Amino acid sequence: MRSKTPDKRRRILESAVRVFAKEGFFKAKVSAIAEDAGLAPGTVYLYFKNKEDILISIFDVRMEEIISRFRSAILEKEDARSRMECLVRMHLKGFQKDPDLAACFQVELRQSSRFMRKSVKGALNQYLDLISEIVEHGRRDGSFRGDLPVRLVTHLVFGALDEVVSTWVMSGMKYNLVSLGDPLIDLFTNGIGPDEDAPATVGRVGAQPAD
Amino acid sequence: MRSKTPDKRRRILESAVRVFAKEGFFKAKVSAIAEDAGLAPGTVYLYFKNKEDILISIFDVRMEEIISRFRSAILEKEDARSRMECLVRMHLKGFQKDPDLAACFQVELRQSSRFMRKSVKGALNQYLDLISEIVEHGRRDGSFRGDLPVRLVTHLVFGALDEVVSTWVMSGMKYNLVSLGDPLIDLFTNGIGPDEDAPATVGRVGAQPAD
Repeated sequence: MRSKTPDKRRRILESAVRVFAKEGFFKAKVSAIAEDAGLAPGTVYLYFKNKEDILISIFDVRMEEIISRFRSAILEKEDARSRMECLVRMHLKGFQKDPDLAACFQVELRQSSRFMRKSVKGALNQYLDLISEIVEHGRRDGSFRGDLPVRLVTHLVFGALDEVVSTWVMSGMKYNLVSLGDPLIDLFTNGIGPDEDAPATVGRVGAQPAD
Repeated sequence: MRSKTPDKRRRILESAVRVFAKEGFFKAKVSAIAEDAGLAPGTVYLYFKNKEDILISIFDVRMEEIISRFRSAILEKEDARSRMECLVRMHLKGFQKDPDLAACFQVELRQSSRFMRKSVKGALNQYLDLISEIVEHGRRDGSFRGDLPVRLVTHLVFGALDEVVSTWVMSGMKYNLVSLGDPLIDLFTNGIGPDEDAPATVGRVGAQPAD
């Protein structure tokens, strides 16, 4: 009888990330995942019910690891502004360093059934909670405005990050994703309204409002 | 021989929005769409190749209508700030008024194949272009900062709107979506950084930074 080991489970998930990224979730075959992991196809079914279960497990395992790693790094920073900068940079860097995971998270997981969406909700909410904690901290330590609607800011930050990463993935990952961190942090912090020190931008750009 | 009419095409698409929202795209049957539209199942195939073609057509037709309607309303406003406010409010209002369309756009279209994602890219890009035009206008008329990275701001605005609408849909559409327009516009314009007139938020909230 074959014995189950955590190592084999991890190997299957690592192989699945590669196979899903390359073939796409719908086309990917469990036998290809087994082959990539150097296992017999039947062995995969000792660990996972089906292909959908594998994709959900990738998300759960990786998100748990990501949230724990992000939280440690964030807690090393004192103020909320530094913590937000840390989160934004790690979010972008994490995907840039792991294009296969980026494809899985931003494309494959999105083309999943309603059932799967519900299954990944828990892990996603933990990530949103991490952002909310930073926003709440910033309301207290003066890094951010005191009147912020915390959950709305959370959705603004996550929505912008998610859209920026998705656009990068869909465009073929052709540009430096991490370089968008600084301008994003600037936008979150200062908004797009006119700079009060230099409001006269009309003369500088010198163009007529065009419709 | 049955004759094709634009009216029948429109009826099929309207019925499909209802059926997809109720049943979900994967479970939905073309015969149910035909029945809702009061047509024979075979008639649907005079207009559309398959179920996927119907979903793509919903997106294309509705986006064309949305972009044209938004553009008209936006051009009635002079300054870019009012135009951005107009877009944000119309985006939220449009989905709140049409929950079935919201379910189609935010859930059903997302769980689609890579092929479908590519098919909807054109219409989505036109919407992103509309946002970019407002941002560019705002750089010229002084509504917004002169140093804005236009496409990044576009992704920030769209990403935040999209996340806020998705969260509303996934939560069962239980709260007033339109009421989030004003705080969102405030966040886009002023950012989350401390208010320079009232930076002493620590005392006001009165809590220790908690980890």
